[in-house]
Amino acid sequence: MSLEIMPVHGIGHVSEGDDLAAMIASAAPWLRDGDILVVTSKIVSKSEGRLVDVPADGPERLAARAEVLAAETARVVAARGATRIVQTHHGFVMAAAGIDASNVDKTRLVLLPVDPDASARALRAALRRRHGLDVAVIISDTMGRPWRNGLTDVALGVAGLNAVHDHRGEVDPYGNELELTQMAVVDELAAAGELVKGKCDQVPVAVVRGYPTTARADDGPGARALVRESSLDLFSLGTAEARAVGLADAAGLPDGTCPTPPDPAAIDRAIAAVRPAVAPGTVFTHVTDTTARDRLAGAVPGWPAAAASALILAAPPTPVDPFGLVRFGADVHRLRAALAAEGLPSALLPPPPGTPATAVLAL
Amino acid sequence: MSLEIMPVHGIGHVSEGDDLAAMIASAAPWLRDGDILVVTSKIVSKSEGRLVDVPADGPERLAARAEVLAAETARVVAARGATRIVQTHHGFVMAAAGIDASNVDKTRLVLLPVDPDASARALRAALRRRHGLDVAVIISDTMGRPWRNGLTDVALGVAGLNAVHDHRGEVDPYGNELELTQMAVVDELAAAGELVKGKCDQVPVAVVRGYPTTARADDGPGARALVRESSLDLFSLGTAEARAVGLADAAGLPDGTCPTPPDPAAIDRAIAAVRPAVAPGTVFTHVTDTTARDRLAGAVPGWPAAAASALILAAPPTPVDPFGLVRFGADVHRLRAALAAEGLPSALLPPPPGTPATAVLAL
Repeated sequence: MSLEIMPVHGIGHVSEGDDLAAMIASAAPWLRDGDILVVTSKIVSKSEGRLVDVPADGPERLAARAEVLAAETARVVAARGATRIVQTHHGFVMAAAGIDASNVDKTRLVLLPVDPDASARALRAALRRRHGLDVAVIISDTMGRPWRNGLTDVALGVAGLNAVHDHRGEVDPYGNELELTQMAVVDELAAAGELVKGKCDQVPVAVVRGYPTTARADDGPGARALVRESSLDLFSLGTAEARAVGLADAAGLPDGTCPTPPDPAAIDRAIAAVRPAVAPGTVFTHVTDTTARDRLAGAVPGWPAAAASALILAAPPTPVDPFGLVRFGADVHRLRAALAAEGLPSALLPPPPGTPATAVLAL
Repeated sequence: MSLEIMPVHGIGHVSEGDDLAAMIASAAPWLRDGDILVVTSKIVSKSEGRLVDVPADGPERLAARAEVLAAETARVVAARGATRIVQTHHGFVMAAAGIDASNVDKTRLVLLPVDPDASARALRAALRRRHGLDVAVIISDTMGRPWRNGLTDVALGVAGLNAVHDHRGEVDPYGNELELTQMAVVDELAAAGELVKGKCDQVPVAVVRGYPTTARADDGPGARALVRESSLDLFSLGTAEARAVGLADAAGLPDGTCPTPPDPAAIDRAIAAVRPAVAPGTVFTHVTDTTARDRLAGAVPGWPAAAASALILAAPPTPVDPFGLVRFGADVHRLRAALAAEGLPSALLPPPPGTPATAVLAL
């Protein structure tokens, strides 16, 4: 199997209401059944009228752009300086929600198509019905990515092709069954298309010829299948944003207990981490012995039945004035945050009678 | 410009010490000057002997694998369950450091080449010297990515081609100068190559013909240019890992002051965020008035000269026992963590004389 990747020249300017299928069929009379069209999302957006008027420059332009960005944003994923990485309403994670000011008048911004899979299906259907062509369609756009410099083109919408080629279950020549190998072939096809398209020379469509593997008669599930749900994503937030969530979580720490008996090594790590920050001489005692714990539980009001162990903290054995107790309380919360960093919930409880300047954390 | 993407069949098994240049030249006698070879990193690793022996199964295999992974890891980026996303010594961020158990005997693991750019240069030089072929070489591998399901092939090493095609400064037909548009063309070429290679059918090399744009006579800077330095990356850590850093930072919060006068709105947000977690009736007073602040500063021992404003916290006006002060101290630290989540450092100070059950945060 060899592939050909061919540019479609001569499409020219695209305006709202233009018939993209006719423009492409006319510019590429050499199209054949089985070809895959890789169509830059911008001309789809333009033909669908996904444009907004903005001032050409000045603070008014920045304000208008910020408003447009907010409207296109489902949630902010990361921000630094003027950069905003956001998740769009489609679920794509992109800088500035894919809003683009290139290849358009200075007074307009181009938004992503409302539903790129639907756009791909509509273009495919129009080419079939009105031009007798049975092709697959990919709507592509340019995205950055974490960890690697430079941008690549990926698929926003697909019709007539599976987004993913699933190799799981195939057996290699050494007898190993493949795991985890689902190739995002439409992203690779979009990338291949980009190689013959230009950024400034008006080649908004590429044709991939000879790629049969995942062609399908129906439109298929679309590029939506490539959107990973953010709850399943290990990188659903920027590092700075996630760190701020951790600080906010430390501020709000609820009382809780560990679902399983806590790992003593994790408790030791938390104590070691916090020791440089707390008042010198603060004493940490980890109670794991069942008898000692039960005696403690009996003496401490509000002891949670589910707690498997406890930490007793004692303020430094110097004369403790009222503000010393306030500082000690802050140190107790420092330890609770360090425990939470180890994944360990805790509950703050008063000490048993007769042990002032002491606090109990049930775990 | 059209591209052809062609598979190279018949390379067969590759073993340590094999002459890859000879194997490729013999399998693809149709290679021409100007072609780009996309070579799966695995056969490069095998020919370079980057294999380690491991038990075929059982806990011994898992232990051996973990040891190999640790050796290949520069830092752990994210972990969930058995998944480890790490940065390799090359700087690549990959699941399991790119260690692979497919297309190899069950008792061996394949590591990434030590220096894929050097491997690409060596293969290119051998093809030129011994086979009279002037080609560019990309060493490719398969990677996952945040936010999108499915894997794509990218470049680990390159010789004879710029990794990036920089469009910055080009002017589009509408007169807009392009910004931020640096295309990672070698990643797109690697992806295009993957489309004709198989995972299990022993096509480890693809040839891209007709791509002239960034060809260069020297080897060029290599794929190293694609590695983004982690300090510049908005996603240098997994969300859970970065959240844990935030919790650990809350545990360790040092005393500090804001480099510029703090935004009152940020302080209000911090107070609002923390209020549900602190004892009901706790009173927060933000001191911004210069005269009031200077009076406070004069009365509070240890007031930092750089502090621009202060927050006074008062415990609920109920009889406060010693443990009530400890709880109040924990609440003060909750507010400090909430302020830190807003980017605001603070310093914990004792109250002015005669105001017990009170604490001062200088900002």
